[in-house]
Amino acid sequence: MAQSLPVSPLAPAKFPELAPIKGVRLASAAAGVKYQNRTDVMLAVLDPGSAVAGVFTRSATRSAPVLDCQAKLGGSTESGAAILVNSGNSNAFTGHYGQSSVAEITQALAAETGLPPERIFTASTGVIGEPLPHDRITGKITELNDGLSEDRLKDAAEAIMTTDTFPKGSTAQVEIGGRTVSISGFAKGSGMIAPDMATMLVYIFTDAKYDQTELQKLLSGLNDSSFNCITVDSDTSTSDSLMLCATGASGVDATGDDDFTQALNGVMLDLSHQVVRDGEGATKFVEIQVTGAASDTDAKVHGLSIANSPLVKTAIAGEDPNWGRVVMAIGKSGALADRDKLSIWFGDILVAEKGWVSPSYREENGAAQMKQDNILIRVDLGLGEGASTVWTCDLTHQYISINADYRS
Amino acid sequence: MAQSLPVSPLAPAKFPELAPIKGVRLASAAAGVKYQNRTDVMLAVLDPGSAVAGVFTRSATRSAPVLDCQAKLGGSTESGAAILVNSGNSNAFTGHYGQSSVAEITQALAAETGLPPERIFTASTGVIGEPLPHDRITGKITELNDGLSEDRLKDAAEAIMTTDTFPKGSTAQVEIGGRTVSISGFAKGSGMIAPDMATMLVYIFTDAKYDQTELQKLLSGLNDSSFNCITVDSDTSTSDSLMLCATGASGVDATGDDDFTQALNGVMLDLSHQVVRDGEGATKFVEIQVTGAASDTDAKVHGLSIANSPLVKTAIAGEDPNWGRVVMAIGKSGALADRDKLSIWFGDILVAEKGWVSPSYREENGAAQMKQDNILIRVDLGLGEGASTVWTCDLTHQYISINADYRS
Repeated sequence: MAQSLPVSPLAPAKFPELAPIKGVRLASAAAGVKYQNRTDVMLAVLDPGSAVAGVFTRSATRSAPVLDCQAKLGGSTESGAAILVNSGNSNAFTGHYGQSSVAEITQALAAETGLPPERIFTASTGVIGEPLPHDRITGKITELNDGLSEDRLKDAAEAIMTTDTFPKGSTAQVEIGGRTVSISGFAKGSGMIAPDMATMLVYIFTDAKYDQTELQKLLSGLNDSSFNCITVDSDTSTSDSLMLCATGASGVDATGDDDFTQALNGVMLDLSHQVVRDGEGATKFVEIQVTGAASDTDAKVHGLSIANSPLVKTAIAGEDPNWGRVVMAIGKSGALADRDKLSIWFGDILVAEKGWVSPSYREENGAAQMKQDNILIRVDLGLGEGASTVWTCDLTHQYISINADYRS
Repeated sequence: MAQSLPVSPLAPAKFPELAPIKGVRLASAAAGVKYQNRTDVMLAVLDPGSAVAGVFTRSATRSAPVLDCQAKLGGSTESGAAILVNSGNSNAFTGHYGQSSVAEITQALAAETGLPPERIFTASTGVIGEPLPHDRITGKITELNDGLSEDRLKDAAEAIMTTDTFPKGSTAQVEIGGRTVSISGFAKGSGMIAPDMATMLVYIFTDAKYDQTELQKLLSGLNDSSFNCITVDSDTSTSDSLMLCATGASGVDATGDDDFTQALNGVMLDLSHQVVRDGEGATKFVEIQVTGAASDTDAKVHGLSIANSPLVKTAIAGEDPNWGRVVMAIGKSGALADRDKLSIWFGDILVAEKGWVSPSYREENGAAQMKQDNILIRVDLGLGEGASTVWTCDLTHQYISINADYRS
């Protein structure tokens, strides 16, 4: 089924040229976990001295690999590290068997590479509730280890796709003290796609040197305004994982550097937007800017309430400038709002203000905004300084087809 | 458009014979607020001594009639009271004009009936953001007042429909101290339907005598386990209103009577389920029973997370026993859960337990459950005594068609 879906109309024109990252070598292989005739496992090996940071799903029913990764964060950076990811099976809700599969893969990889098990991270994405056929993966570890190369970022990005319609990559370079540092990352995810439960997995690498504790803080902070601000259908995977690895091979210490932070933020936003652009059945990319809220948290609650509203999302799919549904979504969010202080814009068109439709608003102007592929909805609450921006896509017949018309 | 939608396949076979309620007279009329060739305004007039209770949407952007009703609750029961409801226009997000429209209608009705304005309640349902043409309604008040009759409950139910595909009524009689007390009510609502923002409005009448303060407590309590436990699409109207009126005309004081509470609860559950059965595009009626939660509140959070999950709802539409999506919805809800203590049933089929698929589960048994019109999903968290039941419907292509394919 993955192969049969047409590429999203919102996809970038092509996969970017990702700068290789010194100190990270990657490989992919076809292990036949579930899919045939494609790669489905990727390995990334990091040189000694690499810092590793991660953020993971907060689901109470998270998968065995997620629990294993969380337990290993913060370990010694002295030795190298590795990340192994398979697609086709999520190893989620697989009982005690799930942890055994993680251990088998970790042991085999430790034996092959000489890396300590506590620096080996794994992730799995695909069908839930079925035992992971880990033998198929361990049987490919020698092939993977032998094939490691710095220029295989795109191969790795393709191996972890499930029902994504395009591979997702992003890259940036930044000058620090006259020397160049590179950041390259890739992601998979397009909401939750039947018949499997899909997942968002993101791996970002840099050759900057970065203190591991500070790297974790940096990642958690930037995640709050990027991957935690996107939503396709309000559903949350049991396997979502985001990892950031700094090899230090450039010899440039970027700890706390503002330009580095900004470049990394750009990569994270780019990847998070690509996930939305591959949202199930998406035909519109929607940015929702909320300002004037009582707090940043309130602004995000309002933004996500609008972004997750089926009525707002179907109106956008129908190119209907139905601002009444935006009012409804603000009203139900639970965050502070005052009907009579609220202003709403579609693009640069002021639609509603002072508790009513704006006197300057003309329906045809709102309708013209809705015909774009990229939609901007702006809301000002008129209450304070709180602000947040979130991103989503529309809700279309194709979403229903993907999720209801096919049987697992 | 209302007339063009086919009647929901989940509709009851026929509208029930509602017992007339002594002390309540009703009438309907065609005011042409928006719809042509149908009634769109209903009036209910209550005899002196009637207690009136109400619960309303918690939306921060609630409508002018809702704010007016809330301000009037708890007034003296000495005089009579009246409720006037129009369909076709919700008088929501209509600025200062909204309150003027409510005042105009209230004054006209007070002049016609001699009732004090503070005992006149109104509601409006239909398009949002357009001024209510209240003159069309005040122009019909004499006709309405002249047409009042105890046996016009069904006429009233029909007048308040917007895009409902069937009128919704329920009735019960209960013996208290050897004398009969009657309860009859009607509702409208089917989620939020384009091109209008629809609303749930419910009016229930009884000839029991009931202390007004106690009646308010009774209604609020029962509402928490009936209308507050249903969801079609997670969106909340700016106009939702539920009113309960006790005329006392039977001479029987039912204050605190258990049989009365139980009968009223039955009427409220019946009406709430009919709203779900008229959910936009619904083909399945879904009951979600959650037990073993850390608290009743946690149980309801889990239940609504399952009920509102687009992935669960589309799986049900596709008759797919996709229990992994139920696990996902529990995991993301934010309420306490332990993956390895969780059990899930479809109907009486145990699907998952102890963090994995049940050894006794066979996919064909789950699939057979999913072919029913009425689906039962049971979840036991294995943590405590908390329990809650919620109701919803599936998410189908027809929902998208109703909400995206037509322009307002």
